[in-house]
Amino acid sequence: MYPSVDMETMTWLEYREKIDSILILPVGATEQHGPHLPLCVDALLAREFARRLAQKTNGIVAPALSYGYKSKPQSGGGPLFPGTIDLSGATLQQLAADLIDEFVRDGFTKIFIMNAHFENDPFLIEAMDLCAAKYDGRVTLVLSNWWDPMPDELIGRLFDETPFPGWAAEHAAITETSLMLYFAPELVHMDRIDDSAAAAPCAYHRYPVKPGCVPASGVLASARSSSAEKGRLIVESVLPRLCDIVREAFA
Amino acid sequence: MYPSVDMETMTWLEYREKIDSILILPVGATEQHGPHLPLCVDALLAREFARRLAQKTNGIVAPALSYGYKSKPQSGGGPLFPGTIDLSGATLQQLAADLIDEFVRDGFTKIFIMNAHFENDPFLIEAMDLCAAKYDGRVTLVLSNWWDPMPDELIGRLFDETPFPGWAAEHAAITETSLMLYFAPELVHMDRIDDSAAAAPCAYHRYPVKPGCVPASGVLASARSSSAEKGRLIVESVLPRLCDIVREAFA
Amino acid sequence: MYPSVDMETMTWLEYREKIDSILILPVGATEQHGPHLPLCVDALLAREFARRLAQKTNGIVAPALSYGYKSKPQSGGGPLFPGTIDLSGATLQQLAADLIDEFVRDGFTKIFIMNAHFENDPFLIEAMDLCAAKYDGRVTLVLSNWWDPMPDELIGRLFDETPFPGWAAEHAAITETSLMLYFAPELVHMDRIDDSAAAAPCAYHRYPVKPGCVPASGVLASARSSSAEKGRLIVESVLPRLCDIVREAFA
Amino acid sequence: MYPSVDMETMTWLEYREKIDSILILPVGATEQHGPHLPLCVDALLAREFARRLAQKTNGIVAPALSYGYKSKPQSGGGPLFPGTIDLSGATLQQLAADLIDEFVRDGFTKIFIMNAHFENDPFLIEAMDLCAAKYDGRVTLVLSNWWDPMPDELIGRLFDETPFPGWAAEHAAITETSLMLYFAPELVHMDRIDDSAAAAPCAYHRYPVKPGCVPASGVLASARSSSAEKGRLIVESVLPRLCDIVREAFA
Amino acid sequence: MYPSVDMETMTWLEYREKIDSILILPVGATEQHGPHLPLCVDALLAREFARRLAQKTNGIVAPALSYGYKSKPQSGGGPLFPGTIDLSGATLQQLAADLIDEFVRDGFTKIFIMNAHFENDPFLIEAMDLCAAKYDGRVTLVLSNWWDPMPDELIGRLFDETPFPGWAAEHAAITETSLMLYFAPELVHMDRIDDSAAAAPCAYHRYPVKPGCVPASGVLASARSSSAEKGRLIVESVLPRLCDIVREAFA
Amino acid sequence: MYPSVDMETMTWLEYREKIDSILILPVGATEQHGPHLPLCVDALLAREFARRLAQKTNGIVAPALSYGYKSKPQSGGGPLFPGTIDLSGATLQQLAADLIDEFVRDGFTKIFIMNAHFENDPFLIEAMDLCAAKYDGRVTLVLSNWWDPMPDELIGRLFDETPFPGWAAEHAAITETSLMLYFAPELVHMDRIDDSAAAAPCAYHRYPVKPGCVPASGVLASARSSSAEKGRLIVESVLPRLCDIVREAFA
Repeated sequence: MYPSVDMETMTWLEYREKIDSILILPVGATEQHGPHLPLCVDALLAREFARRLAQKTNGIVAPALSYGYKSKPQSGGGPLFPGTIDLSGATLQQLAADLIDEFVRDGFTKIFIMNAHFENDPFLIEAMDLCAAKYDGRVTLVLSNWWDPMPDELIGRLFDETPFPGWAAEHAAITETSLMLYFAPELVHMDRIDDSAAAAPCAYHRYPVKPGCVPASGVLASARSSSAEKGRLIVESVLPRLCDIVREAFA
Repeated sequence: MYPSVDMETMTWLEYREKIDSILILPVGATEQHGPHLPLCVDALLAREFARRLAQKTNGIVAPALSYGYKSKPQSGGGPLFPGTIDLSGATLQQLAADLIDEFVRDGFTKIFIMNAHFENDPFLIEAMDLCAAKYDGRVTLVLSNWWDPMPDELIGRLFDETPFPGWAAEHAAITETSLMLYFAPELVHMDRIDDSAAAAPCAYHRYPVKPGCVPASGVLASARSSSAEKGRLIVESVLPRLCDIVREAFA
Repeated sequence: MYPSVDMETMTWLEYREKIDSILILPVGATEQHGPHLPLCVDALLAREFARRLAQKTNGIVAPALSYGYKSKPQSGGGPLFPGTIDLSGATLQQLAADLIDEFVRDGFTKIFIMNAHFENDPFLIEAMDLCAAKYDGRVTLVLSNWWDPMPDELIGRLFDETPFPGWAAEHAAITETSLMLYFAPELVHMDRIDDSAAAAPCAYHRYPVKPGCVPASGVLASARSSSAEKGRLIVESVLPRLCDIVREAFA
Repeated sequence: MYPSVDMETMTWLEYREKIDSILILPVGATEQHGPHLPLCVDALLAREFARRLAQKTNGIVAPALSYGYKSKPQSGGGPLFPGTIDLSGATLQQLAADLIDEFVRDGFTKIFIMNAHFENDPFLIEAMDLCAAKYDGRVTLVLSNWWDPMPDELIGRLFDETPFPGWAAEHAAITETSLMLYFAPELVHMDRIDDSAAAAPCAYHRYPVKPGCVPASGVLASARSSSAEKGRLIVESVLPRLCDIVREAFA
Repeated sequence: MYPSVDMETMTWLEYREKIDSILILPVGATEQHGPHLPLCVDALLAREFARRLAQKTNGIVAPALSYGYKSKPQSGGGPLFPGTIDLSGATLQQLAADLIDEFVRDGFTKIFIMNAHFENDPFLIEAMDLCAAKYDGRVTLVLSNWWDPMPDELIGRLFDETPFPGWAAEHAAITETSLMLYFAPELVHMDRIDDSAAAAPCAYHRYPVKPGCVPASGVLASARSSSAEKGRLIVESVLPRLCDIVREAFA
Repeated sequence: MYPSVDMETMTWLEYREKIDSILILPVGATEQHGPHLPLCVDALLAREFARRLAQKTNGIVAPALSYGYKSKPQSGGGPLFPGTIDLSGATLQQLAADLIDEFVRDGFTKIFIMNAHFENDPFLIEAMDLCAAKYDGRVTLVLSNWWDPMPDELIGRLFDETPFPGWAAEHAAITETSLMLYFAPELVHMDRIDDSAAAAPCAYHRYPVKPGCVPASGVLASARSSSAEKGRLIVESVLPRLCDIVREAFA
C-alpha cells in the first residue's frame, strides 16, 4: 500500500538507495484492546504513523515489531487477558539492539523508533543507549511515541464529552479508537463498545496482578465519543510535530 | 484479508474462542532476494502458507516474525548485501521462547511454527526444546519449513529447465519466485531477473565472509523458468502434506 | 539510628523473629542533584521513608540499594554529569530478583519495594513479575515510589511560589530539597541553589544524549521555596497512605 | 601418540613456536552410537582427522571438545538415549567463542574447527561470526565437517550394499563404523551390530520428542558392510581436500 | 561522619574535584555473624577500612555494596541461616562491572576494591579482569581484603588464647568481633557469645548443603578473647600496608 | 586404557548399567606449567585421579573438561603466558551446569567433580549450587580437589628439601611434577627444570596483570626434588581419603 516507503516491498537495490535517509522502525504490541478493537492496534498505529512520517521526510519504514513488552494493569490492563502476548524486557531490548546494529551496519546514521505501546519505552531506550555508546557519535537514535508531541489544545477538543484520563489509561479509549476508525475502520466494532468500567487500577505495582483490578472488558476509559474525524485531527496535528522532531533531533 | 484466521484482526474475545485449536506462528526474515524480489519474501511466504494451513485445520495465525537469523553465503548469500537485516541466534531463540510461553499461558497446547527461512531452524528448535521441557508433555510444539514436505516428484516438474540446486541454494530462485508470482505478483520484477551467477559459495564456512563468494546479484540459482502456475503447484502439493503433519504430530 | 527496624543492625536471631512481618527494601540511586544536594538523595529518601513505614507497620528494613538505573535527561538530567553512577537495566533487574528470591527463601511472603528514583521502576517491576511467577501466589510483591500516593491537594501547598513541573522534572527541586532539609539538613547547601535553568529537556528520547539539553546546574526546576516544614508536610501526608497501600496490597 | 601436533603434550615454550601455523580445534560430542560403537565416536573422529590434517599442514591440534550440541531424532537419534550428554546451544557457542578469543590473544590468525557432530554447526558458526566481527579481518576462522569435502564418487564405493541415507542419517552407520574400525578397532563391536531399524524419524521437528521415533538401537541406517578398508578410503580421500580448504581459505 | 571522603555526602561539583584521586569501593555482605554480631559486619568493616584508607591517600569512598556473594559452609557457614542474603555470582560480577565502568567513564583511572567478605573475591576479580581488558591499560583496578596484608606477627598477638583457625573460618570470631568492638561497640553483644562450636565444616564441597555441617550458632571459631584493643591493633597494623599497596599498585 | 571405568569407551547400553553408581567428572585446564611440563597437566591429573577413584568405588568417569577458568598470577601465573587458554567464569559455570543436568536426566544421583585446577572452584561450585536447587534433594553433588584431602604429615615428606609454598603457589612444582613423573613420565622434561624464580606474585589482585609479576619461567616454586616415588606417595595417600569422602558425602 505504501510501496514508496515500505522497506519490505523493496528489492535490496531499491533499499540501498535510501541509506542516507531516515530509517523508521515502528514498534507495537499484540495486546487486548477491549471488545471493540483488534489485537493489532498498537502495531497498526505505529506502522501508519511511521509511513506518513516517512512520506513527509523522505524516510523508509522497516518491518514493524508486532510484539512488545508486558502490558501492565495501570497502562493497558492486559496481563490477565488472553490475546496479550508479551515479550520479556530483555527480549525486546535485545531485539531492538540487534536491529539497530544491523541498520547501522548497512550505513544508516539516522534511526527513528516510532513507538505505539506505552510499556515498550524503557527497554527500547536501554537498547538505544547501549547501541549509541558503540558508534562514537556517528549515529543518532530517536524514539517518540505518537502521543508525545500531541498539543494540549488538541486534547481539549478530543475529550469533549469525557475528561482526559492520562496517557497510561488511554487504552482502547478515545484516541486509539478514533485513530483506528481513521486508519482501518473495518477492524473497529463500534457496536461492541463497553464503557461500564468500574474497577480502577491501583496506583502502586503489585505482583502477582490481582484479578479484577482492571475492568472485565479490558477498557480503562470510555471510547464512546470516538470518531474517524477525531482520528484525522490527531494525525494532522501530530505529524508536523514529528517532522519537527526529525528536523531537530537529526540536525 | 484472512480475518477468519489472522489473530491480529481479532478482538481478545474472538481470540479466546480459538484456544483449543492450533496456533500457527509464521517465521520469516528480512533478506535480500536478488534484483527481482522484495526483502519480505520469507515473511510473506511464511504468512501465506500459515493462513492456508489455518483455514484447512481450523487454526489461528499469530503475527509473523519479520526478522530472522543470519543469512549465510551457502543458503541465501545475504550477509554482505544491504537489506539483509539479521538477528543473532540468541535473540531469535529468546523471541521464539517468549512467544511460545505466552501462547501456552493463554491455554494453547498445539503450536505450529511455519518457517520460511532456512537458517532459522536451529535457533527456533532450541527454543522449542527448552520450552517443551517446562510443560511436562502437556504441550506439543511442531516446526516445518514449507519445503520440507515437498514430494520429490514435484521437484522434477518444477525444475524442468534447470537442475534442482538443493534447498540451501534455492534462494530467490524458481520456487520462491514462483510462489511470489502466485501470492503477490505485484512485488515481482520478472524483467530484472539476473541469472548471470558465476561465483559459487564454498562448501566450508569461513568468517569473515569473503566478498565475492556469492554472485553480485545475490541470486544463487536461476529464477528464469518461474511462473505463478508453478507457485500454485507447490501450494497445492505442500498444503495437504502440512495438514498430514498437523494430524500426525498433534495426535 | 533505627535499631528496631534496620535489618542490618540485627543479629540473625533477631531477624528471624521478623519473618512474618513486611520486608521493606529501599531502592535509590547515586546521582547528581544539583550544586546544593548530595549524591545520595535518592538512597537516603528511600531509606527514611522505609524506616518510618516499617515503624508504623511492624516491618523490617533491608539494606538499601545505593545504585540505581540510568538517569535520563527528562527525569534527572544526569547521564552527562559526573557523580551519576548508573547500573544497566539488566543489572538492576537481576540484583532485585536475587534479593527478592533470598528474602522469600528465608520465609518472607510480604515484600515492599520503597523506591525513590524515577527511572528504576520498569526494571524493578520486571524483576517482581518474573519472581512472582515462581511463587505460585504464596508471595506478594509491592512497589511504590514515595511520590505516588501524594494527594493533589498537598501539591498545591508545596508549589505555592512556582508551578508544579511534573514528577519527572521534580529533580533536586522543591520536594526533594524539602525532604532533605527535614531528614538531613546538614547535607543541604541552601546557599548554593541555582535556579537559572534555561535549557529544557526535549520531549523525545535521543541517543547519544545531546550536551546542553539539561541546565548546566543539573537542576530541572527551581528549589528556591524549599523548607524543612514542607518536608514534614510531605512525610506526614504520604506515610498514612503508604500504610493504606500495605494494608490493601497484602490483605 | 601425536606429540608433534598435539598441543596438550607441548610445553608453553614449544607451543609458542607454532603461533604462525594453523590452530585446529576438534569438536565432537558424547552421544549414543548404537550397540556396537562407543559414546566417544564424534570426539575421536574429530581428533583423528585434526591430527592428520595438522601433520600435513604443519598445524597444531588443540584439546578436543568432547561434548557437543543436542542430538536430534533426525540426525543422531540421541535425545532419548542414556549416554547422550548434550550442551545447550548457548553453552557450546560461548565455549567456542572463549576458545577462539584465547587462541587469537596468543597470536594465532588461522583457526580451523574440525567438526564431527552434525548438530554442532549452527552454534559453532554463530561463535565464529561474532568473534570474527571483533578482529577487523586480521583473523580467519574456518569450519569443516569431515564429511563435507567427501567426493560423490567415493559415496558410491562406500554404499555398495545399501543406499546412501544422507548425512543426517549416517549415524553409527557405514561411514562412522568404518572410520572407527580404521582408527580404533578395539572400540568397535562388530558382533553387536543391529540393523533391525524400523521406525524412521519424521521430517518435521516435534517437541517433546516422541518416544519410538527412532529405532530402539539408536542406529538410523545399517552399519553392516563397514570395514577398516572403507575407513582408510574415506581418510585418504578427504584429507587432501581438507588440505585444499586450508590452502584456499587462509590464503 | 566522614564527609571529607564519603562520596555520597558530596555534591556532584565536589565529587568532580576528586577524579584524579583513588576511588575506593567497599564491598561487604549481609550475612549471619552468630548471636553476638549484626548482619552488617562485612559491609561495615569494608566501609570503615575504606574511609581510613581514603583519608590517608586522599581518596574518595563510593557507597558500599551491602550484599555479596553466597556464604559457604567452609567460610561463613551462612547458606542455611536466615539473614544471609546472597547474590548469585553473575549478579555480583555484573554489578561490580557496571560500577567500575561508570567510575571510569567519569574519569577515574585508579580504582581500589576494599573487600570484607571472603567469598566475593572470584566474582569481583572476574569483573575487574573483563573491565580492564576494555581500557587498554589506561585504568588500574586493585582488590584487597582487609586481612590480606595482615602481618604474621600480629596474628600471634591476636590469637593469644586460642589457635588461629585460618581466614576462612575466622567468621564472627576474634578478628571480626574485635574490629566491631573498635568501630561500632553498640552493635556487639559480648554477653551472647556462643563458643560451644562442635560441628566442623567438611573439607570438600557438597550440595545441597548438609544441615548441621556448621555449628548451630553460626560461629566457626571462638570470639571469646575479642577486644576493642585488638581491633585497634588490627587497624593500625593493616592500614599502613594498605597504603603501601596503593602506592605500589597504582605507581 | 581404563575401559572398565571410562564412559567414553562404553556403548550406551554399557553406560546404562552404571547409572546407580557414582559419576565422576574430571575438570582440568590448559595452562602453562613451566618449561618442563606439558600444557595438559591439570586435565591429565584430574583424569588419572578420577579413574583410580572410580575403580575403587565402582564409579564411572565422564570425558574430562580440558579447559578451565582463568589462571591467576597468584596461583598458576598463567594469564600472560602463551598456551594458557582460559574460559571466562560464566562459560565454565554454564558448561558444568549443562553437564550436571544431563547426567541427572540420565538417572545419576551421585556426581563427583574431581578438580585439578585451583581457580576452577568458585565457578564449578556456583554451578553445583544452582543445579542442586533444582533437584529437591534427590541428587548429591560433591567437589574435591586432589590436594584437599592430603594429610599434613605427607606434606612434610614431600617438601624435604624446600619449604611448602602453599597450594596456590604449588604450580608446576614438586607435587605436580611428581604426579606427572608417576602417571606420564614421557611428558616430563626433568632436564629443563628452571628454578631461578625471582619475582613473587603480589598478595593483592591487580588488573591489568603487571608483566613480570611472575617468574619468566612460569614456575612459582621449585620442582627440583620431584620424583615418581613422591607421585606414588601422593596417590596412595590421597586415594583412600577420596574414598572416605565418597562414602561420607553420598551416604
